[in-house]
Amino acid sequence: MTRSAAIIGGGVIGGGWAARFLLNGWNVNVFDPDPEAERKIGEVLSNARRALPALYDNAMPDEGELQFFSDMGQAVANVDWVQESVPERLDLKHKVLGALSDLAPETAVIGSSTSGFKPSELNAEGARAIVAHPFNPVYLLPLIELVGEAERTEKAAEILRGIGMFPLTLRKEIDAHIADRLLEAVWRESLWLVKDGVATTEEIDEAIRMAFGIRWAQMGLFETYRIAGGEAGMKHFMAQFGPALEWPWTKLMDVPEFTDELVDLIAGQSDDQSGHMSIRELERLRDDNVVGMIRALKRSGSGAGGVVNAHDANLLTNETKDGLPVTARRQVPASWTDYNGHMNETHYLEASSLATDRFMAIVGADESYIASGKSYFTVETHIRYLDEVHAGDKLTVTTQVMGGEGKKLHLFHRLWNGESLAATVETLLLHTDLNTRRTCLPEEAVAKAVAAYAEEHAGKDADGHGRHVGQRQAAAPSPEGAVT
Amino acid sequence: MTRSAAIIGGGVIGGGWAARFLLNGWNVNVFDPDPEAERKIGEVLSNARRALPALYDNAMPDEGELQFFSDMGQAVANVDWVQESVPERLDLKHKVLGALSDLAPETAVIGSSTSGFKPSELNAEGARAIVAHPFNPVYLLPLIELVGEAERTEKAAEILRGIGMFPLTLRKEIDAHIADRLLEAVWRESLWLVKDGVATTEEIDEAIRMAFGIRWAQMGLFETYRIAGGEAGMKHFMAQFGPALEWPWTKLMDVPEFTDELVDLIAGQSDDQSGHMSIRELERLRDDNVVGMIRALKRSGSGAGGVVNAHDANLLTNETKDGLPVTARRQVPASWTDYNGHMNETHYLEASSLATDRFMAIVGADESYIASGKSYFTVETHIRYLDEVHAGDKLTVTTQVMGGEGKKLHLFHRLWNGESLAATVETLLLHTDLNTRRTCLPEEAVAKAVAAYAEEHAGKDADGHGRHVGQRQAAAPSPEGAVT
Repeated sequence: MTRSAAIIGGGVIGGGWAARFLLNGWNVNVFDPDPEAERKIGEVLSNARRALPALYDNAMPDEGELQFFSDMGQAVANVDWVQESVPERLDLKHKVLGALSDLAPETAVIGSSTSGFKPSELNAEGARAIVAHPFNPVYLLPLIELVGEAERTEKAAEILRGIGMFPLTLRKEIDAHIADRLLEAVWRESLWLVKDGVATTEEIDEAIRMAFGIRWAQMGLFETYRIAGGEAGMKHFMAQFGPALEWPWTKLMDVPEFTDELVDLIAGQSDDQSGHMSIRELERLRDDNVVGMIRALKRSGSGAGGVVNAHDANLLTNETKDGLPVTARRQVPASWTDYNGHMNETHYLEASSLATDRFMAIVGADESYIASGKSYFTVETHIRYLDEVHAGDKLTVTTQVMGGEGKKLHLFHRLWNGESLAATVETLLLHTDLNTRRTCLPEEAVAKAVAAYAEEHAGKDADGHGRHVGQRQAAAPSPEGAVT
Repeated sequence: MTRSAAIIGGGVIGGGWAARFLLNGWNVNVFDPDPEAERKIGEVLSNARRALPALYDNAMPDEGELQFFSDMGQAVANVDWVQESVPERLDLKHKVLGALSDLAPETAVIGSSTSGFKPSELNAEGARAIVAHPFNPVYLLPLIELVGEAERTEKAAEILRGIGMFPLTLRKEIDAHIADRLLEAVWRESLWLVKDGVATTEEIDEAIRMAFGIRWAQMGLFETYRIAGGEAGMKHFMAQFGPALEWPWTKLMDVPEFTDELVDLIAGQSDDQSGHMSIRELERLRDDNVVGMIRALKRSGSGAGGVVNAHDANLLTNETKDGLPVTARRQVPASWTDYNGHMNETHYLEASSLATDRFMAIVGADESYIASGKSYFTVETHIRYLDEVHAGDKLTVTTQVMGGEGKKLHLFHRLWNGESLAATVETLLLHTDLNTRRTCLPEEAVAKAVAAYAEEHAGKDADGHGRHVGQRQAAAPSPEGAVT
């Protein structure tokens, strides 16, 4: 049954929560008295539709239903999750969380997006909320800091993992949780640097993104320093740099006065740095960068890459289309497009290469089979690019087995863009011993599974296979030339 | 003429500098009394050889010559750059930088890797050094903070850009420059969180890399917050979060005492978190992640991606091999390999797709031609995978024009791995109007350039072209079937 979440307070954060739930197949009820709420959430959602599915190599579930309510009680009736994202004022949080605790089902998680308040503060007037603190853009960044009563945070963590997020449950409540304390430290020091004319906002951003930002995106602080310590390890690093703590390196013992002058200085520098792009353009640039970097981390499984891999595995389905196994269903990421404004030729092959991997897993040549020292190597491929494909398009790949005797696996992939055939990819693989790097016969179970598919698919046409490049029309190959 | 750098003090930082210069074709002289220096630098260099060229889509120059000296004067004679990376003690820096200022050529830049000292401190006893502060791994991260006398930092900046780095020249000298002040702020706050039992080292790393680390790697702090302010902009963001500065969010007004107990606590947690991997394994994981993320940023040109793109353009050469234009020379990044331990089929096509782009540029269908609304679209491709290719292998791609009448561009790429033919990629493109998305004739200049190549290449054999998948042997296509 479709699950439901209520979003209390729209805006960038509430909208990001709504998008996470919706795109993972949940129904979402929004309550926000702001007349602009529908427009604002629509804008976040349009960014999210473009970016979040691009993280995955499998299609996400069908989107849930989005509804707007003018009555808070109706919005939270029968939901599994209520997320409060109202402005950061304790009196307002008390009022809203108190009402939600009365109105929402007893079984519902009530999460607060607060960046600073502790559960003991939020619940001081009898509410039953936990902190569920997200990071902008909520539809892309996996971290949620959970703070509160153990049974509630455990339930929350399970739900969050189900929508592809990374819950980090705090051991103790503390003002501003963990991440915002670190951010606050950097923010204060940066304000000093700007105020004192040491660096502009742009120079500070360069100092971050050209160096430690890249380290932190994949390992964080301590693991990075562990490496810096070399074989001598963490103790050595601390012996070397620990004493610096007592040097006068930062002005952090003090807080800069937040004058209009400082605000103008920073806003002006920020205009010089980024004013040539609209916020919408900056958001899309950020999202494309974030998607690209997280996709890069999928390879090692580090950090956010690991979270996305785990969720991707949950998205696998077993389907058929036209009597053939569906070996891929996915959305095309912007990073797959090129200067011609369409999917680059490379990614037609990438999509079908992943389909080959999937087909191998279906017939039993899966991860553990490969770990045992056997696999298939591709020896030849022919691609017909029949139609342009664009970022955001939804691809479905079917795989037809053209032959599978002995060491051979001859596949014919069709890349469907909706109901239009965008490409065919014909590929010949040979079964190989990974130790000797020589071809060999597959294990019997794999051979049988391949043979069964080959027999089942034998009668089907395969228009466009057997062609050579530039051949005038789709002719069948001459029988004497074909090996399968 | 090959330029030379002297590295004073080996270790991880000195070794990283050595690798940057060497892999960019400089000769490098090392002076370090440590008997282990040669081994240590060798280890850094072996990591760098694997990772740095993987950032680029063009081959780097031939490596310079590495020499070790036991006499500092000999090491710095006739060099263009001297880099001091000795331990962080001011008396030692005075002694070494003073000697270098006497021994090195007057024209040489003398850079200090100091993370904390100001030029006025370094030069208090008459040295002529500037701060040139790098970030580990020096062979991958582009940032160098430059501080010192304007004429010297300008000269240094030009040299650094020439070896693919990003010099950031400070407006004012300040303890710990810019980036380390921010790092120090986070380090202090993190030590408090661990000491107070709020979070472990692993939890802090997760809080960073699952959220703001990913934001910062591509935009930094201020541009990220500008987005958070939405259309209302930076002022709105500051109005919203500025007051939080006065809240008791951090303990940064104070410095944790650096006791043995705290060191043990952190070292122990770090062992739990990362102790299952050796430092060498962690380094390679980090490097592969960093390379993957920076390569992802190349697409938008944000941050380090833009620095790598600019350097990549400098690496382009015009060569021929076997009478054919060389359209790609590159090292294979680890991210191009797959579960079979070799280059994935997708990247055979990626390498030749980039070669097609390069060939298009050679015949005048370059960036500005495409911007004018005309381009080539690939309609069909045939790939023969002839040999395995591994991470770190050096590929050379040649391009033979099989035909180029009218709208057609029929190419035959050969992927050479050293002197061994690893693949052939035959591809047919049609010239297209980017506005109507319909085929059309190319501009005359492009048509002529293509025709000239077609004529020049007409007599050459093209073993393996015209095949269909699974064809028993490399037969020529039947003439009536071929369009080119």
